[in-house]
Amino acid sequence: MVKDKKTKPSKELPLGFVDRQEKELLIRDFVISNIKEVMIKYGFQYLETPSFEYTDSIGKFLPDKERPDEGVFSFKDEKKWLSLRYDLTAPLARYVAKNYLDLPKPFKRYQLGTVWRNEKPGPGRYREFLQFDADYVGTNNLQADAELCILICEILEKCGLTKNDYIVKISSRNFTEKLFDQLKIESVTQKSTILRALDKIERLGWKEVTKLLGKGRMDKSGDFTKGASLTEKQIKLVEEKIKETVPKNKDILEIIKIFKTYNFTNFKFDPSVIRGLEYYTGPIFEVNLNFDVKNSKGQIIQFGSIGGGGRYDNLVRNFGNLDFPATGISIGIDRLVYALMQKKEFNIKSNKPIVICVFDKNSIAEYIKLQNQLRTVGISVEIYSGDGNLKTQMKYADKLGSPAVIFYGDDEIKSGKVTLKNLKSGQEISTQVENLTNEIKKLL
Amino acid sequence: MVKDKKTKPSKELPLGFVDRQEKELLIRDFVISNIKEVMIKYGFQYLETPSFEYTDSIGKFLPDKERPDEGVFSFKDEKKWLSLRYDLTAPLARYVAKNYLDLPKPFKRYQLGTVWRNEKPGPGRYREFLQFDADYVGTNNLQADAELCILICEILEKCGLTKNDYIVKISSRNFTEKLFDQLKIESVTQKSTILRALDKIERLGWKEVTKLLGKGRMDKSGDFTKGASLTEKQIKLVEEKIKETVPKNKDILEIIKIFKTYNFTNFKFDPSVIRGLEYYTGPIFEVNLNFDVKNSKGQIIQFGSIGGGGRYDNLVRNFGNLDFPATGISIGIDRLVYALMQKKEFNIKSNKPIVICVFDKNSIAEYIKLQNQLRTVGISVEIYSGDGNLKTQMKYADKLGSPAVIFYGDDEIKSGKVTLKNLKSGQEISTQVENLTNEIKKLL
Repeated sequence: MVKDKKTKPSKELPLGFVDRQEKELLIRDFVISNIKEVMIKYGFQYLETPSFEYTDSIGKFLPDKERPDEGVFSFKDEKKWLSLRYDLTAPLARYVAKNYLDLPKPFKRYQLGTVWRNEKPGPGRYREFLQFDADYVGTNNLQADAELCILICEILEKCGLTKNDYIVKISSRNFTEKLFDQLKIESVTQKSTILRALDKIERLGWKEVTKLLGKGRMDKSGDFTKGASLTEKQIKLVEEKIKETVPKNKDILEIIKIFKTYNFTNFKFDPSVIRGLEYYTGPIFEVNLNFDVKNSKGQIIQFGSIGGGGRYDNLVRNFGNLDFPATGISIGIDRLVYALMQKKEFNIKSNKPIVICVFDKNSIAEYIKLQNQLRTVGISVEIYSGDGNLKTQMKYADKLGSPAVIFYGDDEIKSGKVTLKNLKSGQEISTQVENLTNEIKKLL
Repeated sequence: MVKDKKTKPSKELPLGFVDRQEKELLIRDFVISNIKEVMIKYGFQYLETPSFEYTDSIGKFLPDKERPDEGVFSFKDEKKWLSLRYDLTAPLARYVAKNYLDLPKPFKRYQLGTVWRNEKPGPGRYREFLQFDADYVGTNNLQADAELCILICEILEKCGLTKNDYIVKISSRNFTEKLFDQLKIESVTQKSTILRALDKIERLGWKEVTKLLGKGRMDKSGDFTKGASLTEKQIKLVEEKIKETVPKNKDILEIIKIFKTYNFTNFKFDPSVIRGLEYYTGPIFEVNLNFDVKNSKGQIIQFGSIGGGGRYDNLVRNFGNLDFPATGISIGIDRLVYALMQKKEFNIKSNKPIVICVFDKNSIAEYIKLQNQLRTVGISVEIYSGDGNLKTQMKYADKLGSPAVIFYGDDEIKSGKVTLKNLKSGQEISTQVENLTNEIKKLL
């Protein structure tokens, strides 16, 4: 090794990032394969854009404007700034603007990809997450919005949730725009501040949100967020409107009509739904779970939504004079997997290998023959690859969670026999080498 | 929309990043599913570490030291620097150092993940790529090294390559260390410079490499790279050694012995194999393709290896006094997919939806019934979701590559009939609604 190092580096991860283990990853694979199946059935195309975009291409539509770097990871490349994407929608708008001549209209695409938020890390707040997005670009047809809500539900139910486990909440940005008119608010900054405040109802509760609508709020860490400076009377009006239950907005009424033709009833009109991102222009949706989710200490946590979306008719237009009204929906895959693991017992087949113990390094060719025999029929098996004695090897198989170990000593090799030890039952059987595959299949 | 924007952002991607289309992604999914199947059979555990690590945790083992930022994307977070991982090996070492008490020894894991290199972008040089890694951590046993080479080949053949299509080259860092002794070179910097020069034989040819071993080399863009300052006599000795064909190194001989017991012959001893990363300590491997790969203009390109790896016995030890000798191998998935797409005709089943044309928006409920009937049996179908007339809808279906369109006009709805138009043959058939599913299955 060319390097000689003296200082010990950190073994820890930066806040907001995690390692993920096999069980979670296998359930995630199951969720992803369900998503892909539904996407094909609904006629969406598979696309992947890169992690980085020019910062000006993806714009600054994040809610957390209090931070100087506005929530994205960015760095300067030659002359221009690049950013890691904070969602999959802004890159899609860039993609459509670049390729619009080649695309069918409407363009229906889905994407699975990691997104990053350079947010203030805190318990349960991650800075990297895997997202699934489905979008219709180039249509005003509200059938698209309705179908997005329906396909999300099909995915959730394929993953094992029932209709009682979740609800789709719908509202519209037109609703808040109308509210701004009534409040006589024209300032873009003030509007943003109000939207950001309302988006926090679920997380902070109405009382804390009134502070953000008024003078401002100090959080537990002592950080102060300036408020929207509404008067008490204005805040009262906001509260009335946000608690309405009967929709009057014509887009929402139209979407509900389409839901009926699909016999889709698992939704609710809820004007307190805001969605943080600034680019929405019309109907917005949010998918919420109806069951409790707990943290690693067993405490029930404020889980919030597992996804949502809405119409963003102007995002592609920012790139030029292209008229591509659009609508989309996302799921936070990591959050969904986290919730699913609590709701459902997943009977994931053990992937752990059977371990062939090494008695004598000179017999390695015989062990390899045995290993090949089993791998050829798809059995997960390995020859112990460490340097320990038999006791160490048994400990290894235990720690790994192997279903069984194989003993194939010199005498056995001579007699064409092999011993299979079931590590669950402790039972040992001796069998002809030719019968080993069958004995293992019985045991798995 | 709260935002009002005046300037037009760029529609382009930063250099070194690409959008990926459906065909490539489906072949990639096929490759990944093969990898997972082989990994389970060989007894590896599935792990995922995050994109970001503390910069000091993953160290600086990249070859491109000429650049001030040394090839990684880094950000300052509160007080410490974070970097996007440049490989999956350094994060694994950090993971093992953090979790060693809980892990079986040896720890066999595989990972699939994006890595980033902040390199000078150029034609065909990407700054983001998907990598697959398999590693054994905590064993000196060379059977591990041998099996890594063998499992890579099983993956390649599962993906459709034959034994003639690829070769595994093996060498050892001990070989170059011995060479340094013979050259009487002790300086760590000079050693690094020599290794980096030798690593470029395939890309630049021996003649250009002699410049990098000597005084230095100017590339086409005029950038000058300082050389290792070897004398002509020393360069001569390097050349002799690097062209040897019979291995004397005892590790290599041992690995070759194990290959034989596996009947694995698709390898070659090649001391010119270097592998760029600095952390290697013993045997190193490289997987090369034997067929020509062309660029988008049809020109044959210098494709290089699709993967490789080696032993890195000291990487975990950097975190403290943990003795975890290790060995691993990687495949560049994007590169492999690129090559596979040229070598092999993939008969990927069309995922494109059948389009139900919209004659009358008031009949939408009837269209939805038809759509449900087909989706229930897993057929990819959609009701046209744009706003265009029938001509526009036909153009849309064509552009999409739909296998068929469905006409279900008012008269047909009344009579319980539906028309299916095959877009490949142009043939139209009229059928009872109940028979539509069967007619479509015949056509797909």
